[in-house]
Amino acid sequence: MNWLIENVAYFDGIHNTCMERGYVLVRDGKIEALGAGEAPLCDASYERIDGKDRLLLPGFINTHGHAAMSLLRGYADDLPLHTWLKDLIWPAEAVLSPDDIELGTELAMLEMLETGTTTFTDMYADMDRVANATIRAGMRAVLGRGLIGFDDVNLEKLAESESFVRMYEGAGEGLIHTTFAPHAPYTCPPDYLKHVITRSQQLAVPLQIHIAETAKEVADSYSEYGKSPVELLYETGLFECQIIGAHCVHLTDRDIELMAEHHVHVAHNPGSNLKLGSGIAPLRKLLEQNIVVGLGTDGAASNNKLDLYEELRLVALLHKGVEQDATAIDAFSALRLVTNEGAKTLFLDPMLGTLQPGAPADFQFIDISGPRYYPRHNLLSHIVYSSHGGDVTDVFVAGKPLFRKREHLTLDKEKVFYNVKRVVQKFPLSQRVNV
Amino acid sequence: MNWLIENVAYFDGIHNTCMERGYVLVRDGKIEALGAGEAPLCDASYERIDGKDRLLLPGFINTHGHAAMSLLRGYADDLPLHTWLKDLIWPAEAVLSPDDIELGTELAMLEMLETGTTTFTDMYADMDRVANATIRAGMRAVLGRGLIGFDDVNLEKLAESESFVRMYEGAGEGLIHTTFAPHAPYTCPPDYLKHVITRSQQLAVPLQIHIAETAKEVADSYSEYGKSPVELLYETGLFECQIIGAHCVHLTDRDIELMAEHHVHVAHNPGSNLKLGSGIAPLRKLLEQNIVVGLGTDGAASNNKLDLYEELRLVALLHKGVEQDATAIDAFSALRLVTNEGAKTLFLDPMLGTLQPGAPADFQFIDISGPRYYPRHNLLSHIVYSSHGGDVTDVFVAGKPLFRKREHLTLDKEKVFYNVKRVVQKFPLSQRVNV
Ligand SMILES: [Zn+2]
Ligand SMILES: [Zn+2]
Repeated sequence: MNWLIENVAYFDGIHNTCMERGYVLVRDGKIEALGAGEAPLCDASYERIDGKDRLLLPGFINTHGHAAMSLLRGYADDLPLHTWLKDLIWPAEAVLSPDDIELGTELAMLEMLETGTTTFTDMYADMDRVANATIRAGMRAVLGRGLIGFDDVNLEKLAESESFVRMYEGAGEGLIHTTFAPHAPYTCPPDYLKHVITRSQQLAVPLQIHIAETAKEVADSYSEYGKSPVELLYETGLFECQIIGAHCVHLTDRDIELMAEHHVHVAHNPGSNLKLGSGIAPLRKLLEQNIVVGLGTDGAASNNKLDLYEELRLVALLHKGVEQDATAIDAFSALRLVTNEGAKTLFLDPMLGTLQPGAPADFQFIDISGPRYYPRHNLLSHIVYSSHGGDVTDVFVAGKPLFRKREHLTLDKEKVFYNVKRVVQKFPLSQRVNV
Repeated sequence: MNWLIENVAYFDGIHNTCMERGYVLVRDGKIEALGAGEAPLCDASYERIDGKDRLLLPGFINTHGHAAMSLLRGYADDLPLHTWLKDLIWPAEAVLSPDDIELGTELAMLEMLETGTTTFTDMYADMDRVANATIRAGMRAVLGRGLIGFDDVNLEKLAESESFVRMYEGAGEGLIHTTFAPHAPYTCPPDYLKHVITRSQQLAVPLQIHIAETAKEVADSYSEYGKSPVELLYETGLFECQIIGAHCVHLTDRDIELMAEHHVHVAHNPGSNLKLGSGIAPLRKLLEQNIVVGLGTDGAASNNKLDLYEELRLVALLHKGVEQDATAIDAFSALRLVTNEGAKTLFLDPMLGTLQPGAPADFQFIDISGPRYYPRHNLLSHIVYSSHGGDVTDVFVAGKPLFRKREHLTLDKEKVFYNVKRVVQKFPLSQRVNV
């Protein structure tokens, strides 16, 4: 299906402004043309969309998460990280079946689509189930089987990971991308990581890993190895791969230098890092060193949303306050992080996250008819500072509508909710379930 | 009109949990009764509301703002505070007429009502126009004519302020409350403040003032007076009044002690403080000293929303991250700040912001049918971490519906938008207006 979107305001992901009124043509899953004013004549293969009261912008790109953890939303909040993880999250995760993981992924995709996300990143178990659910939903995704490397069982998981990459890279008509996904330096010792590095290089797919999320992780790394997690990973040879490093909260200047030299990309998760009390990543320093940075939500157990409008506003506010400098990051730079820079972070098509001829037609509409969008001094500012995820009305991936007029076209919302209610009964603390 | 709300989940503002399914009776503008399960029999004066897929909670209370600055939303972002204020905000404000201020207040109320706010606080000019617009809209408000005290003209403004208090305290069938509102210690020298203090005590209304918003303000206070803004205000006698201190970002331990001893209340504005690069208020220390704290949005030029769902989530996340402690503030405490503690901050009815028999019937419904509200491990957690302002479907003040099924009943949205478009043309930088 081809689309002629007319009478619409848009942000193209490239320029620091919004077009007030223009058109966008979509053909064969790509942006064909766009511009100011009236659309050119189109043949009957184009379906018209009237963009009145709408603003069109690139779909958002979530560079870090664990989709199935949506089943643990609100299960454990406001607790110290270790209590949270060991006493509540791990025991709950231990009872999740492959069916549950597929279901949790569907719940996550419902939320992500409703809030304008078109590409997500996942690190979890049962990735074949995640990939199949994603293909059915029609989203774009970067998927990796989470790996922990303390014993020999984990070499089996690495083999499982490898066959996942071989089977799914490019699946879903090119919407599915794969990675290796060793969990973290403190759960994957150097010897194990070396196996992963070899596989990642052989198969030429990126490697995603949590890095320096908490002060404790960094302190432990110094105790055990006499070096920071970043130094350890560098010396292990990890930075010879394409790296998506999640969090990167606690970094020395030397760490940042190493990451910049070796083109390590960073998935910045401001909401999750705040909620778990982990801290605040040095975003400005990363950007000043030309490190590629995208935004992520992390899992819903530590956010508790998968709504990149939250992370967008948060990233634009937080670093100004922390640095006591209102120029620390501007609205346009923040919006780039959640669109085109997100695509770059994930090593995807460098046109993804923009609206330009030839770019993948992944886009969203937001309703700008409400009071938060008045006056219209600056629509781009309103996207960043005044919008919220509930403004999203329509979402397209590769030119295909997945969410239209606030209705899901590929996911069965009621069925997912029904199954979620059933499944959560089996959690260890199911007495906490209050509906 | 009396209301029988049944089959509804609710948060009563008092207990650290949500009722899964219960009823609430509203009679003569007050909460009459509430409880679990089925409602008692009611006579025909009660209109029934089915609470299916809804959660009922107290209306939110905004303890600091400048409503008419909604006209400057997005007019000037990402700039250092002084450039922002002197080159952009003040010249734009200089062209605002009383009609414009009334219009800006209406725009602000549209947004506040749509996002569940039932009480707001204002400090601006032309307060009679603000009060009349508020009475027509039916909102509860705490209003004060902003005062700057450098010359004799300002004694006239103080007289204007005094007659505003005399005329409007208790207006709108008790919904309007008044204050004196000297802008800040750096714009109101001690001699001028002493006049304000006398009036505030004579008329027995509170006094709202910005305190220690930026590091520069504090440094200047030390240069000029050899003491902090808090010490200066204390020594001037201000703390003998009922004080609502906005911001209070940069405080010494001695400042906090003085504020606690003298029962100074604090309007905490985390979003505005971040966006202007002012910093992060020491919330935990304030709460540990039993200082009464509420949440505020500040004006839309520095936020850019008037949506307390944003501040609620932000306050619950931010301080955990800054202190690197996930227990720094829990969901229930955050929710209290935006409800009952907000009422206390403003020296209002101490039952306001709760649902209990005899409390003013100021409440809101949110739609909890979406994916962000599943699973239902903990509905209270979902209000804080997973909701957004767009979930609000209905808002009542003193038992009167102002926003029903997402439609405004007291404000004419289209007329406001039409006039806003017209008015903003006259701003000094009207070429920035892009629609
Ligand atoms: Zn993670
Ligand atoms: Zn203010």
